Amino acid sequence: MTHETNPYPSRLKEDQGIDPFVRLDPVVHSRNQWRWDGPLDEMSLSRYERDGFLWFEGFFSQERMQPFFDELKEMAEDKKLMESQQIIKDPESGEIRSVFAMHEISDHFNRLTRDPRILGMVRQLLGSEVYIHQSRINDKFGFQGSGFDWHSDFETWHSEDGMPRMRAVSASLMLTDNNEFNGPLMLIPGSHHYFVPCIGETPDMNWTDSLKAQRLGVPDQDSLAMLAERGGIQAPKGPAGSLLLFECNTLHASNKNMSPWPRSNLFFVYNSVENQLEEPYAAPNPRPEFLGARENTDPLTMHDDFPELAGQGVSPLKFRG
Amino acid sequence: MTHETNPYPSRLKEDQGIDPFVRLDPVVHSRNQWRWDGPLDEMSLSRYERDGFLWFEGFFSQERMQPFFDELKEMAEDKKLMESQQIIKDPESGEIRSVFAMHEISDHFNRLTRDPRILGMVRQLLGSEVYIHQSRINDKFGFQGSGFDWHSDFETWHSEDGMPRMRAVSASLMLTDNNEFNGPLMLIPGSHHYFVPCIGETPDMNWTDSLKAQRLGVPDQDSLAMLAERGGIQAPKGPAGSLLLFECNTLHASNKNMSPWPRSNLFFVYNSVENQLEEPYAAPNPRPEFLGARENTDPLTMHDDFPELAGQGVSPLKFRG
Repeated sequence: MTHETNPYPSRLKEDQGIDPFVRLDPVVHSRNQWRWDGPLDEMSLSRYERDGFLWFEGFFSQERMQPFFDELKEMAEDKKLMESQQIIKDPESGEIRSVFAMHEISDHFNRLTRDPRILGMVRQLLGSEVYIHQSRINDKFGFQGSGFDWHSDFETWHSEDGMPRMRAVSASLMLTDNNEFNGPLMLIPGSHHYFVPCIGETPDMNWTDSLKAQRLGVPDQDSLAMLAERGGIQAPKGPAGSLLLFECNTLHASNKNMSPWPRSNLFFVYNSVENQLEEPYAAPNPRPEFLGARENTDPLTMHDDFPELAGQGVSPLKFRG
Repeated sequence: MTHETNPYPSRLKEDQGIDPFVRLDPVVHSRNQWRWDGPLDEMSLSRYERDGFLWFEGFFSQERMQPFFDELKEMAEDKKLMESQQIIKDPESGEIRSVFAMHEISDHFNRLTRDPRILGMVRQLLGSEVYIHQSRINDKFGFQGSGFDWHSDFETWHSEDGMPRMRAVSASLMLTDNNEFNGPLMLIPGSHHYFVPCIGETPDMNWTDSLKAQRLGVPDQDSLAMLAERGGIQAPKGPAGSLLLFECNTLHASNKNMSPWPRSNLFFVYNSVENQLEEPYAAPNPRPEFLGARENTDPLTMHDDFPELAGQGVSPLKFRG
């Protein structure tokens, strides 16, 4: 630990508990006239500031998503890949649970991270150039995928990766339909306004366990109850191709897949180039590059697959079913 | 085992698998002119026959339910009761998960089993006088109650209690609101038409384990997928006081309570007096009286708390929000 002060203390000892406190960082980082320099209008920006997420039902067509899902199935056949650290298996079923660094394995996924509309929104929210901090696919096969307990991603990225401030956003693309029964992501609207310090010191190599089941970095039940009573819980549902943008500190969780329908969601985590990783704030050692990029942090450039979309406005209101 | 033939074989050896087959029993047991001799109209009866359940949102007022919830909380203070076999603790949290034989512990709950409208519907569905086979409360405290895997109640009652035929119905009354996040009951509409023989022989005293987590009597994933693809999945949600009537062979399950909101549901299982328990069909010994009544099987008589309701028609359509 090289940090003398820590703006977001967590992974504390049992008797060091600190109450949740209001975050120190803005939610939308673009200031003044730059605020509207992007695809999101004021209504959408205000909604993101209030809730900590934006949901775009049917952002891409299901047809556009299918090749990505097919590529995932091909990867499952690749024995060498399947044995690498980038693949996390489900603790109960042994099936694939997560694949990390998709954008480095596949040019196809790499281009998707640089989609003009997504990148336009992300730059607008973070107020700077951005790079991919982490990419992953989370799978839940029918009747098998287990749930994931409540957590803030930022709490882990700060404590274990050394991400200094709350200036990152996750774009989650649904590769399959997400419905009430296949373990969709649940979020607590407004929870991103608070940082909830968590109890439990981080053991070395914690990530070899934490990617299978969230044990550390889970807020205490009183804080969770307070935030859920205030903001409620929402679980956006929709067809493959739907997009969820959520702020790095928004509390989220998911339940078990109780249905025969697989649930496969792609996550690209965008971080501001002005918010690059330092030493971990509350862990003995940094995690590997595929979990938190330290080397590959060049600003992303938009691809030009769909030049006609580059300048087009995007609003969740247009996408509401 | 004293049965020479078994109409619904289950708890089979690994290599004895039998495919799901169409049930041998009617769903609505009242025949001919007796079919309409009760509160349910033809629309409701047909719906029950098709789906295997009926949902009455706001059947009782929330105010009427509160005293029952309060009584449950009082029971939790009763140390002697808490240590009895009738109380099942959650495998993860150690909190109360189920209380059995409510109607024998409490006169208040006993009267509720004899509510004229509920009893009227149940008699109409089962085509005879009825008694309580089992009563229980299933609790899921906030962030704690774990889920329950897919199963048919009849599969257990037949195999472990010796219930001969499918001629029982469960009435589930919501003591708290049931919402998307606190682990509501999920059902597969139409699944009651099929009996799914399950693999796995029943060990002696299986019930000491099975009430905490359903391990035996869980249909194979192919059968579940086939039935869920056909009928979909539904999870009725509504305020405290809502009522679910479901057929004894309808497949159901529930997920973990991910919210701070407790979920507490009361179940009364009504069995036809013409369908009384025999020797278990697939277990070494019968379960205790509080799980499957053999002695206390006198026909229920309606109480007269609300005489004005006795002759009134009841339809889920009237209760739809």
